[in-house]
Amino acid sequence: MKTYEQPTSRELFMRAVKVIPGGVYGHLGPAEGCFTPVSSYPLFATKAQGAYFWDVDGNRYIDYMCAYGPNILGYNDKDVDAAALAQLKDGNCVSSPSPKMIELAELLVDTVKMADWAFFAKNGGDTTLFALMIARAATGRPKAVLTRGGYHGVQPWTQKDGHPGVTPQDLANNLYVEFGDYEALERVFTEHKGEIACFMATPYHHPVFEDNRLPPEGYWKKVRALCDREGVVLAVDDVRCGFRLDVKGSDYHYGFEADIECFCKALANGWNVSAVCGKDSLKEAAGSVMYTGSYWLSAVPIAAAIACINKMRDIDSAKICTEKGRKLTQGLVASGKRHGYNLIVSGEPSMWFMREEGDDTMEIHQAWVAECVKRGVFMANHHNLFINTAMTDEDIAFTLEVADDAFAAIAKRGLVPQSGAAGKDR
Amino acid sequence: MKTYEQPTSRELFMRAVKVIPGGVYGHLGPAEGCFTPVSSYPLFATKAQGAYFWDVDGNRYIDYMCAYGPNILGYNDKDVDAAALAQLKDGNCVSSPSPKMIELAELLVDTVKMADWAFFAKNGGDTTLFALMIARAATGRPKAVLTRGGYHGVQPWTQKDGHPGVTPQDLANNLYVEFGDYEALERVFTEHKGEIACFMATPYHHPVFEDNRLPPEGYWKKVRALCDREGVVLAVDDVRCGFRLDVKGSDYHYGFEADIECFCKALANGWNVSAVCGKDSLKEAAGSVMYTGSYWLSAVPIAAAIACINKMRDIDSAKICTEKGRKLTQGLVASGKRHGYNLIVSGEPSMWFMREEGDDTMEIHQAWVAECVKRGVFMANHHNLFINTAMTDEDIAFTLEVADDAFAAIAKRGLVPQSGAAGKDR
Repeated sequence: MKTYEQPTSRELFMRAVKVIPGGVYGHLGPAEGCFTPVSSYPLFATKAQGAYFWDVDGNRYIDYMCAYGPNILGYNDKDVDAAALAQLKDGNCVSSPSPKMIELAELLVDTVKMADWAFFAKNGGDTTLFALMIARAATGRPKAVLTRGGYHGVQPWTQKDGHPGVTPQDLANNLYVEFGDYEALERVFTEHKGEIACFMATPYHHPVFEDNRLPPEGYWKKVRALCDREGVVLAVDDVRCGFRLDVKGSDYHYGFEADIECFCKALANGWNVSAVCGKDSLKEAAGSVMYTGSYWLSAVPIAAAIACINKMRDIDSAKICTEKGRKLTQGLVASGKRHGYNLIVSGEPSMWFMREEGDDTMEIHQAWVAECVKRGVFMANHHNLFINTAMTDEDIAFTLEVADDAFAAIAKRGLVPQSGAAGKDR
Repeated sequence: MKTYEQPTSRELFMRAVKVIPGGVYGHLGPAEGCFTPVSSYPLFATKAQGAYFWDVDGNRYIDYMCAYGPNILGYNDKDVDAAALAQLKDGNCVSSPSPKMIELAELLVDTVKMADWAFFAKNGGDTTLFALMIARAATGRPKAVLTRGGYHGVQPWTQKDGHPGVTPQDLANNLYVEFGDYEALERVFTEHKGEIACFMATPYHHPVFEDNRLPPEGYWKKVRALCDREGVVLAVDDVRCGFRLDVKGSDYHYGFEADIECFCKALANGWNVSAVCGKDSLKEAAGSVMYTGSYWLSAVPIAAAIACINKMRDIDSAKICTEKGRKLTQGLVASGKRHGYNLIVSGEPSMWFMREEGDDTMEIHQAWVAECVKRGVFMANHHNLFINTAMTDEDIAFTLEVADDAFAAIAKRGLVPQSGAAGKDR
């Protein structure tokens, strides 16, 4: 199997570092090399369509990062883009909002089970911060309970102590528990009785570098009852999972109801909008918080979101992504086994996480992912991956061929997992 | 002169409040009635083109809010939108950025005098927070000096104590001085020697409700020298002024160089992108801060920004807006005088602020603005206004006719300014 060359990506990167800190920033860039197979990584894309993008050297990749989530229906989905372009003719960022904003709010209220109202912003982080501020405004309490390793954006309050640019005051109102540990949560609620505004968590635990963890049986129901008892707002950060588990909300998927739910990523198939949905009990508090931004009422992404949600409902995109993800991951595991590797798959199939067993240094997984990328299957190493509905059975078959060839390539290089007890279970 | 009816706006608003907290949120909405002439306000727009938008009742407005800043070249500028649409065919929000990102960074470095590098985000508030985090990362110090009444977005650290959802810890590292008071700044720097990471301010002071204030003669040069002496990062929030005073940066306009400059608003004529520009001395610190978001590398707004900056350079949009603003405000003042009103204009002509003299309750100004809006001239009451380059001499002439008719209308209703010393100078 032919492997790609990426000389133009390297040349452009040398140009980029002159005028952009780090060249390509964030988790999308090579600065955090542990996330991405940098040396095999296409750094700049010139074209995207459906399940694929093409890099500046003309190589095609099946994209299992899906722009880190937004791509749910395939790049440049014709229905979503047609809605966006039709709206553009009528105006985008205007002094007054379009009535489309009401339509989108009504559609979310009709679609997301817990939603009595909706509010729109731009970043996922805009929505998690708004959720926190609403909870504080509603309860008059300052503290937030978060899960260790949970990701809620890049604002200082969500980062770790000691991260550059973060002060201790930014984290002064945070309390941390392990995801899924109900007893720990109950303990924190008791220790800080009357101080806690909200418990914020993702629907299931999808950190980087670690096996992703589904909620234990009965966990969310007990959490819901505890929050009710203590008057704590239950905020679900559905930015990453949203619409990939169930179009009705990931809380619905796991059998409970959040007080606030945050959406972004898959909401508009890549058009720039995020949303907070909430219960009526928090509507007045939401209206009291000063919260807005230059582009927050822009009508083009709102029109795109309407088309995206309608299409996700029509085709049941969560079901499609789950089935495709299950088929793909089963194939990947089987492929590994044929070459003596045990691929550990965790999380939900539509946005699974994987690692190799017996790979303490993570070297084996990184090498395998790099070999996959060089053959046209785009993945990150230690971040969950994503499925979109444009992926076909042929794409999955091609991916499995690539995976097989990549496993063969690393086996040939003598990369052998540590056996038995020596293989640390991360 | 005929005045508009807006029944559909009212009907839609009743629909909106059911599913959106406050109906229309932020400074764009009627919740903060003091900002906007609510009862005469078109709440929803269906079409925008050039200098105008049309509300859901089919009324046309010359828009002096310019979407609160983004509209610099006129709505739906054909050159900017053509660049955006061409890019859309090649992909928007993709796992890898487009090389257009490098092009935009290079263009900003070439355009903005102080810029050695650029970084892109989505909100203006993303850029001010990033500036603060960079300053903290670079200096190892926690504190920020801000100007009282300065606006840097809606994040808790930029809000006021006691605002809903804001905790004392959010503001624990802030120190405040009056804009333009060099001695006060020097005093704070002495009192908190070695603790201050940055001084952040707008290029000139453009708060709501107050006369806007230009920097006193020599102010910025002294501030620059003070920051150099104390190792404090000088961060200019050019989100609102950016490109309306000088395409080379508002620091350049006032004869100094910032260490970090924040842009948003006029950067891409309404397409969703913001930018931080910085000096080389802060590039490493910028690269060290964890900062990214789902849509931050989206190529469509980046392509739009390239076209917008090139066009702003080509036509010297800041000069055009300044000249049109001067002509318009002179005409408005003259119109007021004819009817016994003294309109006090402050700030820069391209984004002037105005109020009536002898109007302690602000009732006169609110009544006059409402009469203007009902005649097709869209303005907010106590927020600065904006000029765009699509506004013609005919638009200005029409605006002056409306202003005259509106002054006549409020005079007829017996709204008379308090005279002499009784007229409080705000």
